[in-house]
Amino acid sequence: MAKIADKYLVVDTWKVIENGFDPARNRVSESIFSLGNEYMGVRAYPEEGYSGDSLIGSYFNGLFEESKVSAHYKGIIRFLRFMVNAVDWLHTRISIDGETLDLAKSEFSEFTRELDFKRGTYLRSFIWQLSDGKRVKLTFERFVSMNVSNLGCQRIVFEPVNFSGEVVVRTGLDFSVIHEDQGRSFWQSVQHGQANGVTAMLGETVNTKNRLFSGFSTHVPNALNSTLVEGDRFIGQDMTIKLVQSEASTFDKFVYNYAEKDLAVTNEQLWSTGQQNAQAYVGASYDELAQQQANYWANVWKESDIVIEGDPDNQQGIRFCIFNLYQTYHGDNPGFNIGAKGLTGEAYRGLAFWDTESYCLPFYIFNNPKAAKSLLEFRYKSLDYALDRAKDLDCEGAFYPIATIDGTESCDLWQHSNLQLHVGTAVAYGIRHYVTISGDTEFLYDKGLEMLIQISRFYATRGQYGQQTGLYGYFGVMGPDEFQLMVNNNCYINLMAKKLFEYTLEVIGSMSEQSSEAFQALAERLALTAEEQADWKKKAELMKIPKDEKTGIYEEHDGFFDMPHLDIHSIPVTEFPLYSHWSYDRLYRYDMIKQPDVLMFMFLYSGDYSLAEKAANYEYYESRCIHESSLSPSVHSIFAAEIGKDEEAYQFFEFATRLDLDNYNRNTREGLHTTSIAAAWLNIVYGFGGMRSDGDKLVLQPTIPARWDSYSFPISYKESKLHVEVNKQSASIKVVSGAAIELTIYGQAYTVDAAGVTIDLVKVGMPV
Amino acid sequence: MAKIADKYLVVDTWKVIENGFDPARNRVSESIFSLGNEYMGVRAYPEEGYSGDSLIGSYFNGLFEESKVSAHYKGIIRFLRFMVNAVDWLHTRISIDGETLDLAKSEFSEFTRELDFKRGTYLRSFIWQLSDGKRVKLTFERFVSMNVSNLGCQRIVFEPVNFSGEVVVRTGLDFSVIHEDQGRSFWQSVQHGQANGVTAMLGETVNTKNRLFSGFSTHVPNALNSTLVEGDRFIGQDMTIKLVQSEASTFDKFVYNYAEKDLAVTNEQLWSTGQQNAQAYVGASYDELAQQQANYWANVWKESDIVIEGDPDNQQGIRFCIFNLYQTYHGDNPGFNIGAKGLTGEAYRGLAFWDTESYCLPFYIFNNPKAAKSLLEFRYKSLDYALDRAKDLDCEGAFYPIATIDGTESCDLWQHSNLQLHVGTAVAYGIRHYVTISGDTEFLYDKGLEMLIQISRFYATRGQYGQQTGLYGYFGVMGPDEFQLMVNNNCYINLMAKKLFEYTLEVIGSMSEQSSEAFQALAERLALTAEEQADWKKKAELMKIPKDEKTGIYEEHDGFFDMPHLDIHSIPVTEFPLYSHWSYDRLYRYDMIKQPDVLMFMFLYSGDYSLAEKAANYEYYESRCIHESSLSPSVHSIFAAEIGKDEEAYQFFEFATRLDLDNYNRNTREGLHTTSIAAAWLNIVYGFGGMRSDGDKLVLQPTIPARWDSYSFPISYKESKLHVEVNKQSASIKVVSGAAIELTIYGQAYTVDAAGVTIDLVKVGMPV
Repeated sequence: MAKIADKYLVVDTWKVIENGFDPARNRVSESIFSLGNEYMGVRAYPEEGYSGDSLIGSYFNGLFEESKVSAHYKGIIRFLRFMVNAVDWLHTRISIDGETLDLAKSEFSEFTRELDFKRGTYLRSFIWQLSDGKRVKLTFERFVSMNVSNLGCQRIVFEPVNFSGEVVVRTGLDFSVIHEDQGRSFWQSVQHGQANGVTAMLGETVNTKNRLFSGFSTHVPNALNSTLVEGDRFIGQDMTIKLVQSEASTFDKFVYNYAEKDLAVTNEQLWSTGQQNAQAYVGASYDELAQQQANYWANVWKESDIVIEGDPDNQQGIRFCIFNLYQTYHGDNPGFNIGAKGLTGEAYRGLAFWDTESYCLPFYIFNNPKAAKSLLEFRYKSLDYALDRAKDLDCEGAFYPIATIDGTESCDLWQHSNLQLHVGTAVAYGIRHYVTISGDTEFLYDKGLEMLIQISRFYATRGQYGQQTGLYGYFGVMGPDEFQLMVNNNCYINLMAKKLFEYTLEVIGSMSEQSSEAFQALAERLALTAEEQADWKKKAELMKIPKDEKTGIYEEHDGFFDMPHLDIHSIPVTEFPLYSHWSYDRLYRYDMIKQPDVLMFMFLYSGDYSLAEKAANYEYYESRCIHESSLSPSVHSIFAAEIGKDEEAYQFFEFATRLDLDNYNRNTREGLHTTSIAAAWLNIVYGFGGMRSDGDKLVLQPTIPARWDSYSFPISYKESKLHVEVNKQSASIKVVSGAAIELTIYGQAYTVDAAGVTIDLVKVGMPV
Repeated sequence: MAKIADKYLVVDTWKVIENGFDPARNRVSESIFSLGNEYMGVRAYPEEGYSGDSLIGSYFNGLFEESKVSAHYKGIIRFLRFMVNAVDWLHTRISIDGETLDLAKSEFSEFTRELDFKRGTYLRSFIWQLSDGKRVKLTFERFVSMNVSNLGCQRIVFEPVNFSGEVVVRTGLDFSVIHEDQGRSFWQSVQHGQANGVTAMLGETVNTKNRLFSGFSTHVPNALNSTLVEGDRFIGQDMTIKLVQSEASTFDKFVYNYAEKDLAVTNEQLWSTGQQNAQAYVGASYDELAQQQANYWANVWKESDIVIEGDPDNQQGIRFCIFNLYQTYHGDNPGFNIGAKGLTGEAYRGLAFWDTESYCLPFYIFNNPKAAKSLLEFRYKSLDYALDRAKDLDCEGAFYPIATIDGTESCDLWQHSNLQLHVGTAVAYGIRHYVTISGDTEFLYDKGLEMLIQISRFYATRGQYGQQTGLYGYFGVMGPDEFQLMVNNNCYINLMAKKLFEYTLEVIGSMSEQSSEAFQALAERLALTAEEQADWKKKAELMKIPKDEKTGIYEEHDGFFDMPHLDIHSIPVTEFPLYSHWSYDRLYRYDMIKQPDVLMFMFLYSGDYSLAEKAANYEYYESRCIHESSLSPSVHSIFAAEIGKDEEAYQFFEFATRLDLDNYNRNTREGLHTTSIAAAWLNIVYGFGGMRSDGDKLVLQPTIPARWDSYSFPISYKESKLHVEVNKQSASIKVVSGAAIELTIYGQAYTVDAAGVTIDLVKVGMPV
């Protein structure tokens, strides 16, 4: 609840800057200054070796290890899979006159580091003072290439201040890195060697046999010699580099990392492909590669930048969010998903949750439709796992995992993995949302409908009819609100299932008309029957949506209104987070909610509900919501904006963009809140921008926070690109590229083209 | 559901007899022929070494090991404690002419074994045919002394049929025994040695440092020599015994086992006490000790025998039950409890559940009040643990564990250990029941009330008021019916809590009058306030007891009547047990119940409910009950008898006494269903005998199963001893010792004395 900003970093609208080094905060900075290119990610650990508190974290999207779960009962998972910490490909050791650099022990000054949003680089520099009085300025820069996903580049610049001499550098690849959570390393070396300028190792994980080739070359003009070094799961070089006073000696390293999970690929194939690709970077130019990186990012900002005038903190914050969304995922590599912490730490085990479809997908739909589609492809690719999982649960169709790295369920808390049904409907909603906005019916008919049918089958077999009411619904479930653990007829789950059935039937209808041959083939392959369609129709019609008709308030689940009341403001601040301070079972027996549940479906299907209904439900549930999920405040902010509570809207937004920059939750050290970062984007575009995208036409209803002078954001819609700019007086919307589009702005229909429209701001919300 | 008897053993009314040896059934027989004396228990494993399927199980009441639980959340236990498999004190190896006996490999004939209820011994004999044609009859007998709890005795008799010669016997103490469930041995040797005729070892458990002294002496008239043998956690003797054709050579072994959990006792003290006590049996007479054992059992049968004429199967069955209840527990040793499998196997980890108070306690109350009191003392002794556990759960007072060996919670399924609240009220009910029947108000005031107050405090802090109803109850609980996992206002829990508050207040009232000084001291020590008493009163009054007033049917919990209906008879027999065949979460979303819950409280407070109410609730819940607890059928049988459904009453009783003898549940190999065995006694006395003991006066309403000629049972009541005999025509009740007592028989008041009364049987039940 009480969140306190840890204002520490320099506010700069295009960079994150830390001046000075605080060992106690080092892990936080390691997370914040993390780099990633969706294929791999690397924390901002001091690569030269650091005996203080640090997490050497190097991750590859989808590479995983597993441990056995001592399962008691059928339907409870047997293997826990997690993103494995992988090769430290930046591994470096630096010695001068026999003294080895270690920021925990060495003397140094003028420490600064920067994460550059325009260049996509992480830079760190300081002056190292040796015990003999020699001083040398070191600058470390690194980036992971957005152009070539396998490529990581490192530059170290040595500038002696008051001497000439030599520095001994060890550089290499360390596969013995520890997975901290499990307290061990999961890698073994399969092969290693040095040839044609490339020093390489092929490692594999102990249990899952995921493999990773890592090969590097160096470019060091002043190198005097170089020796091969081989150790335990380590290969590298020792080199002596000549240093001349006041001159810069550079050390450049180009690392080609190549991950392979397919067991059919032989080690020989993998080794030779890796070698070949790594050789392409022997003698490469760091500056050229860095320039290509900057070009890539320039294009990102052209496509996706949100500009906020008059609020540098949030300007920096939202750019940090967008930067990290792209770093984590941009759809270049098929088969990836977005872990809750992205590629920045071990927490949440690198697993993807419903956050992907519910919070991240809209960003990609409106900024990078290719990436949005690719995210949905992940679910299509893992459909077989979801079919298996449904069978495990004695159901039919597809049951998507609540937490996954490879498509299998990896949540070992049965109460979540077996009772939380909301990933399937989130995927279905995501398909619908993506198709509506992009117009990509090809994807819908090619893959989307198959998923919709299989998801519908699950929901048609997992649900049951109430014995007294005769209504359909879900018994023994947990909704998105994880503070109501095992309930019947959760309103969110029921409503989303109803919508799922309806949409699946609608798509069946349209595809059978528009693409009847392909539809027949699909229907035959899936053995789709008229009976099951009738069954879905009936279940949608008879779906129980608990609601108090007098007040218009939806009942989160059967009996929620009788749950003992707790004034959440009476809970002492020292008891937060409740998960750590309250007995586990105690969390679940109040009318207190962890995150929006009723409000969530009212947001997703915004057009179905009147403003009065929204206001009533917001008042009721907001006062019971503890926000013990970082995804929670943004949805509340969006509602507050819509019903005209501008101050509240801004308060809920307040830490959205800077959750990690200011370490509000005190756990950024574990990694970034990558999926919450997406919520910041939602918060601006859906909240202040008032965008709604659940209907046939896109809706805008812009407002502006009192603190801001203006803000603007781009939107990809169908084949067009829109630009929305809002200042204190008016909103200007224009098409930047593509055809004119129809919009509803403050309830009025507009056709917007390249000339654009400018409309005076209207005070939205409930009449006062 | 479908239970099939495995009719295999010889039916004998005073013995269990197995003729012939079936290796596939050996573990079942090891359980059935187990011996115990409440201090220790030993499975009927072949002590001479057996390479076939066997579980060498030797257990000491309360001796435990522990393993760490990787706890996720507060309130979830951190250590799992379990009864540890201990020293194989019967360890024997037998060789003749270099050939070693092993029933899995040796040739043998005329195998028979017997468990003798009158002698309390386990006997086994067969003729071993050596490969050289020599034949020798071996008879093994053993018993664990009911007179001296620490004493175990073994006799082996060798009778060569067709030769004279020598047998080499190794005898000893093996502490390296494996705990099968955990796949390892938990013992290490502290000290061992041989002195004054005693060969001994002191072992201790690895984690908990529980210690066990074991020392033995042998008496072997025909021994030719003896050598000390020392091995890994083993000490023993090798001896050569002279064999003469057609003559019996006996080998007798007396083992003194002494368990110690108190860390304050030094190893030296323990060793010297053990040695001294073991020496007392050097040169003892096996025959004399066996005679004392027979005398003990003669007294047991005098006090507690149930005689059934006309049904030898059930006669044998009920004696097997009573035999095992005494073997498991008889109150000679303070601080013990009754594990679900007694001392006969590792299953259920040797833990005690609410079964103790709910199913076993009545047997002791009416047969052995000292033992009943001692069981309640276990809860008093472990009150501090229960106080701690309540704190863990953010509550006050005492929360008794759902599964325990030492008083701490040892159930690692949070959904059971945190949500099942019914042990506390079972203890409270047990106190009330014991005190009412025994008249022991001294115990009530000395210890009982303190427990009642602390239990009440827990129930007053764990419950909550419903927001709409304003009624008090328990949210997020699991009742005894474990097929409804996390519900609100479970009827059983609510009703029992209401009764708890009322009884606690009643006892406070009576003690403050009758023993005001002691009461003041207690109230002061516990800081008992008038406010909390008022609070309990209010909560009892406002307790929600969900009930459909039209039908008179209690609703098991909020929303139960709307739970999806399942015709339990439609479930294929291959899907049982459901725990193994259904997805875990699926078990919990039907109107199907695992065991009685509403019926259970209507049984415990029988006098509060009309026959019509009982009939209505029986019809409703019986048809929804899957009986996936071996404790379930007996309660249904008792109800069926009361409402006049004689056939159904007998059907539910059918496998009560022979659950293990006929291996109905196919898992007797893991150990006996010790607590279910107690339910067989309940079934006869409360069911057919129609006894009710929840009111001020004892009630009897005898019926007789059509298959029986007559039956009789004894009852201890206050200071008197009653004998009840029922035949086809009439019931005779008389006082065997003590004062006359007042009884209600078929609704009429009687004063019964030594002369007794004989009353014609009345057809009970609902009017047809």
